[in-house]
Amino acid sequence: MWPDRRLLDLFNIALPIVQAPMAGAIDTELAVAVAKAGGLGSLPCAMLTPDKAREQVNIVRQQVSVPVNMNFFAHTPAAPEPARVAAWRERLAPYYEELGLDPKMPVPMASRAPFDAAMCEVVEELKPEVVSFHFGLPEPALLTRVKAAGSVVIASATTVAEARWLAARGAEAIIAQGAEAGGHRSMFLTDDIATQSGTFALVPQMVDAVDVPVIAAGGIADGRGIAAAFALGAAGVQIGTAYLRTPESKVSAVIRARLAAAGEGTTAITNVMTGRAARGVVNRAMAEIGPVTAAHPGFPHAAAAFGPLKTAAEKLGRADFTNVWAGQAVALGREVPAEDLTRALAEEARARLAALAG
Amino acid sequence: MWPDRRLLDLFNIALPIVQAPMAGAIDTELAVAVAKAGGLGSLPCAMLTPDKAREQVNIVRQQVSVPVNMNFFAHTPAAPEPARVAAWRERLAPYYEELGLDPKMPVPMASRAPFDAAMCEVVEELKPEVVSFHFGLPEPALLTRVKAAGSVVIASATTVAEARWLAARGAEAIIAQGAEAGGHRSMFLTDDIATQSGTFALVPQMVDAVDVPVIAAGGIADGRGIAAAFALGAAGVQIGTAYLRTPESKVSAVIRARLAAAGEGTTAITNVMTGRAARGVVNRAMAEIGPVTAAHPGFPHAAAAFGPLKTAAEKLGRADFTNVWAGQAVALGREVPAEDLTRALAEEARARLAALAG
Repeated sequence: MWPDRRLLDLFNIALPIVQAPMAGAIDTELAVAVAKAGGLGSLPCAMLTPDKAREQVNIVRQQVSVPVNMNFFAHTPAAPEPARVAAWRERLAPYYEELGLDPKMPVPMASRAPFDAAMCEVVEELKPEVVSFHFGLPEPALLTRVKAAGSVVIASATTVAEARWLAARGAEAIIAQGAEAGGHRSMFLTDDIATQSGTFALVPQMVDAVDVPVIAAGGIADGRGIAAAFALGAAGVQIGTAYLRTPESKVSAVIRARLAAAGEGTTAITNVMTGRAARGVVNRAMAEIGPVTAAHPGFPHAAAAFGPLKTAAEKLGRADFTNVWAGQAVALGREVPAEDLTRALAEEARARLAALAG
Repeated sequence: MWPDRRLLDLFNIALPIVQAPMAGAIDTELAVAVAKAGGLGSLPCAMLTPDKAREQVNIVRQQVSVPVNMNFFAHTPAAPEPARVAAWRERLAPYYEELGLDPKMPVPMASRAPFDAAMCEVVEELKPEVVSFHFGLPEPALLTRVKAAGSVVIASATTVAEARWLAARGAEAIIAQGAEAGGHRSMFLTDDIATQSGTFALVPQMVDAVDVPVIAAGGIADGRGIAAAFALGAAGVQIGTAYLRTPESKVSAVIRARLAAAGEGTTAITNVMTGRAARGVVNRAMAEIGPVTAAHPGFPHAAAAFGPLKTAAEKLGRADFTNVWAGQAVALGREVPAEDLTRALAEEARARLAALAG
């Protein structure tokens, strides 16, 4: 039925499709829909409290009896440097003035916490079938506890070196996050955006480098992409952007409109919006400040100062300062219920694979 | 035998593999070897005089009775702006001093001429089966003459918009040059490197946008990549970097050594070396000046001042200022005769395609 069953067996799922956890853009509804179709539903927990993460998993489990993936960030948080934060506020001050805001108004801290002991207790309690990490892995003691809870641990790599690092530390499958991918890049052994490889080049080199299954991510939005991922040696795919226009997506109307209008060549990797590299539809801030700058105050501190700007601009119907995270295949997205979309993707992929044999 | 025969029929070739024309890196020997295996051999003519181009085609035709592709640049040349050239010389002056060179020494003009009437006469005389263009298309009168000579005209596009532009002007097949590709990017309707799409995202969107066959290029170096290209809807592939380490390649020993040592994540798109976007293994100049800068004096004028630096550094065994053009799958290259490599690529692809059907 599928050219490679490793992922299906590892996760105990029917379709080799992992729904990308997209923190801030989705919740349980999408995960449930994908899981119902047979894919792996993923819950983005990086911006949740432990209590909220527990609640989300329980909501999923009340609706479906299938594996669930809890996704966390594993970055090393750095305290903001006051001088850099001040310079950043200064850089954004003209935008505040333009929107009638006080450039010195207080802004809330950005909330992207790394996986910690409190969240680890939730994992030990809930025993999610899969736990995925972005930006590396948590400290060994926490990772050991996650594995002891019985969760299959997977993680994202943007280079072959990162894939080797993850595999050596016990990742049981590795997501090859090609440069096409939307949202934050998992980069943790490099911060060099210029040398990040596209999916087409990354997947086969990662497959050659590690023994665990590789999940292709980035630029995959239809059956052609799934078939191509298998051709390159991947055992399955992770798909995110293609789900952002489904009714289950929780993105705002402003974002939804931008996604619907985004053609090929409208996204870029930027570090302007949060202080870490992420791909999104080019907005005014990315265009005018970056898309890449050395002046940001680090992750996630760069994001905080955009909060009031985003809110004020969106009230005017503008996404000037809004993160419209999306990958390079954003134009292939569909306004279709996520369960139907997942089934359609799988059907298209199977038909494509069969046709390729000639 | 192959999932898509359009390219084979259009070019009258046996294998859906176009050898990339790589100006300055190869000559007739590689084109002949690829042609013998059944692929489309390509002659890079952008840096040749009309007489030299004629000679190259004749050398190929004396050895094989198969279609040949003459490749030209179609950029609009701009005269160098003295102030920008002077600033560029100034920027590079410390390197001159470090190498014991006079920063004000005269440097020869860089020789990358666009397709013109003199070259068009050569095409009309030789009637190559295929003519390919980079950086757009020549003016309509010249293009009409090329087509009247009976040559199939193809061209490279880096965006869906460029593909539509080329198709509307009569290109009979379009090379989808994904961001992974080595060498100069064909960009002609955009100069925004940040929004260039990877092969995985570009190919299907281009296939959907134009009616002519799409040739996938960028990151393809083995049978997996060829199979994946077909999965994405391409009718064939263009492969360049994978041939650079064959004995038929004419790259210098310095370049060959850098190619052999280049792992995943060692290349970047730069405009430092020539004034146009091109992907190569990161060298000192790219790392220290770019990889992308707004300060260059335009194409190909940026290249001229690197000439003496390149020569002097290479004498010391260093590739600090050498263009090591290569794509992101450079590490998949093989030191195998090009004819054997071409046959192996095709065999691997066929095996892969058959295996995908499960």
